[in-house]
Amino acid sequence: MADMTEWQPCGVITMTTDFGHKGPFAAVMTGVIVTRFPAARVIDLAHDIPAYWPPEAGFWLSRSYRWFPPGSIHLAIVDPGVGTGRDIILATRDGHLFLAPDNGLLAPILDGADRVLALDYDALPVIGNDSPSPTFHGRDIFAPVAAELAAGRLQIDDVASETQDWTPGWLDEPEVHADGIHGIVVTMDAFGNLISNIDAGLISDLHDPVVEIAGRRIAMQPTYGRAAPGEYLALINSFGVVEVARAEESAADGLGCERGAPIVVRPAATS
Amino acid sequence: MADMTEWQPCGVITMTTDFGHKGPFAAVMTGVIVTRFPAARVIDLAHDIPAYWPPEAGFWLSRSYRWFPPGSIHLAIVDPGVGTGRDIILATRDGHLFLAPDNGLLAPILDGADRVLALDYDALPVIGNDSPSPTFHGRDIFAPVAAELAAGRLQIDDVASETQDWTPGWLDEPEVHADGIHGIVVTMDAFGNLISNIDAGLISDLHDPVVEIAGRRIAMQPTYGRAAPGEYLALINSFGVVEVARAEESAADGLGCERGAPIVVRPAATS
Amino acid sequence: MADMTEWQPCGVITMTTDFGHKGPFAAVMTGVIVTRFPAARVIDLAHDIPAYWPPEAGFWLSRSYRWFPPGSIHLAIVDPGVGTGRDIILATRDGHLFLAPDNGLLAPILDGADRVLALDYDALPVIGNDSPSPTFHGRDIFAPVAAELAAGRLQIDDVASETQDWTPGWLDEPEVHADGIHGIVVTMDAFGNLISNIDAGLISDLHDPVVEIAGRRIAMQPTYGRAAPGEYLALINSFGVVEVARAEESAADGLGCERGAPIVVRPAATS
Repeated sequence: MADMTEWQPCGVITMTTDFGHKGPFAAVMTGVIVTRFPAARVIDLAHDIPAYWPPEAGFWLSRSYRWFPPGSIHLAIVDPGVGTGRDIILATRDGHLFLAPDNGLLAPILDGADRVLALDYDALPVIGNDSPSPTFHGRDIFAPVAAELAAGRLQIDDVASETQDWTPGWLDEPEVHADGIHGIVVTMDAFGNLISNIDAGLISDLHDPVVEIAGRRIAMQPTYGRAAPGEYLALINSFGVVEVARAEESAADGLGCERGAPIVVRPAATS
Repeated sequence: MADMTEWQPCGVITMTTDFGHKGPFAAVMTGVIVTRFPAARVIDLAHDIPAYWPPEAGFWLSRSYRWFPPGSIHLAIVDPGVGTGRDIILATRDGHLFLAPDNGLLAPILDGADRVLALDYDALPVIGNDSPSPTFHGRDIFAPVAAELAAGRLQIDDVASETQDWTPGWLDEPEVHADGIHGIVVTMDAFGNLISNIDAGLISDLHDPVVEIAGRRIAMQPTYGRAAPGEYLALINSFGVVEVARAEESAADGLGCERGAPIVVRPAATS
Repeated sequence: MADMTEWQPCGVITMTTDFGHKGPFAAVMTGVIVTRFPAARVIDLAHDIPAYWPPEAGFWLSRSYRWFPPGSIHLAIVDPGVGTGRDIILATRDGHLFLAPDNGLLAPILDGADRVLALDYDALPVIGNDSPSPTFHGRDIFAPVAAELAAGRLQIDDVASETQDWTPGWLDEPEVHADGIHGIVVTMDAFGNLISNIDAGLISDLHDPVVEIAGRRIAMQPTYGRAAPGEYLALINSFGVVEVARAEESAADGLGCERGAPIVVRPAATS
């Protein structure tokens, strides 16, 4: 494993959860990490993932991790099955390490991962914690394991074993049909922009593509400011997927669309 | 005071407030701290405490501080009396230091504290600030005092004097009756779980305990995933208190319960 | 430029945006910064600026920057024109460096700035990024430029040229009339306090000033706790401007006021 894809800790740990901002849940994870490894840099990636909805955490994490330094550890905890028998998955990809419950969250990462492992619960005494709370593995398993890995006191193989068995993702992949690319809205940002699961690569061959959503046909633009305030536009956003926006307003409100709404990109000629 | 309970700074400062996330209030406190002590690690514990409601800050802080390193300073600022004659309390416990307005916030900490002191306002020139804003002691007193203490340039006794006089907490303690333990809901998390003030220790002798809330009897489970989605359950949560949840839904919404709602834990035989 | 107003990096970078807390937008900016400059200290100043409303970012930043260490870099990104031809402004003042889109956001800073420059887009290859996303300059221009400047590997003049041409602010300045000082509500905090653009210096000569807003006359007090719960009061807040509050309640809700509401401060004798 001494190749370029090996993971070596850089001290950065990100957290992506559905904990929201009420109460100290993310903060106590940070406390556990810095108690064990004072030099850790903990970055809150997102805590407003919809409760119990792992795919959105996986979407954002898979589209964001490249902007963090190689050697980062990414904790993703949207975990309705906490304390049941569900596994915890560790995966490495492009020099980054990911930890998440085995519930489909990591699907967009695992498809191209270098290594995929399952945590050995029997190995938890290695980190000095053999009785984690059954309701907060973030604090009692994810945080201490991440801290020990980031500190270099623990190696991945000390606490996890390779696996080929994991839960698939919850979302259908976009489908490529003769009439266009069919996807869905995965999430909205604070502006009400509708962000789809259609990767730019899927539409790069389409001539003069047009986006259909909520009964409308919307032209593609390079950026928001190219439309007049109130006009709809579509674009390839900064995370490489098709997005529908409304200049200086909320496309989500204007179109009445939510997560899961169907979206189709067609060549203008056929639409 | 050279015993194990002495407080020695580790550089960590946490903040628990009702400032919310609009405006730069917590950030300027961080700015003041790092201006004075660049090596400080500032951790936002919670800023969504309900406005003017100190007991929730005290609840979360008393249940969370153990997860931070010994030597931490915990600032808790829910402070409707800012700028009036109210005191500022400093307390040490288990090697942690707490600062809060003397308004009952720290009650759960003070009962078992090693030392309790009141800030000497006359000593503020020691930190180079003898004219704090009457409306933002967080920035002008708490933050600079914490920074100087964390940096080791100031000792607790330089700015505070021992006191036996402080404001009691606002919440009734749980009552142990023949028919069960009577408490209240203290807070809800982002999932709508209802978190009570009934400590696990109070019900450890109850045979087969059952929780009563909002006219329902709810069985206890080890974790959320043991109930089918939509079912109610009760459990000892990861902070050591009785909690009422609804699997993958909001118990607060489902039961129509809020902070202050009565909750009783009874042995099944008597309920 | 070797005078006292010269900017020298201290490693602190603050971020003020309208990104909200949904999604990883601020976090990936942090990731970009720490990838380039691991010793950076990134502080989230505020991310809940109303979407597309630059003046509130400029107000808070101009009133807050003094609480951060000299040498800080302040990124302010409320940027409906991202990806169009709009400039990016760099300005130094009091030993702080500010970067923002040229859309009026920085107006309260620029009036007293030591230097004002415009980013040379042609110089972006210097930071190894000549193809920024047209929709996320925060990540692809602001963050890498700030990281390189904070690390001392880049000088301001390497990427920017002096300019005397910038977009004016969006808000009218307060007007001094014979009958009093006429301003507006600029923002509200989480408590519902109404924060105006009337600086304390403008009313320092008024005898016994009284505030008029929403048809009410409200007396000035030194702090919130001097009014009984539910009573309205006005004060000079901790950021040096006139604020209207309601003790332990929301003045915004009680008065039905929002951003932009007119507010007048008069001497009591004339009102």
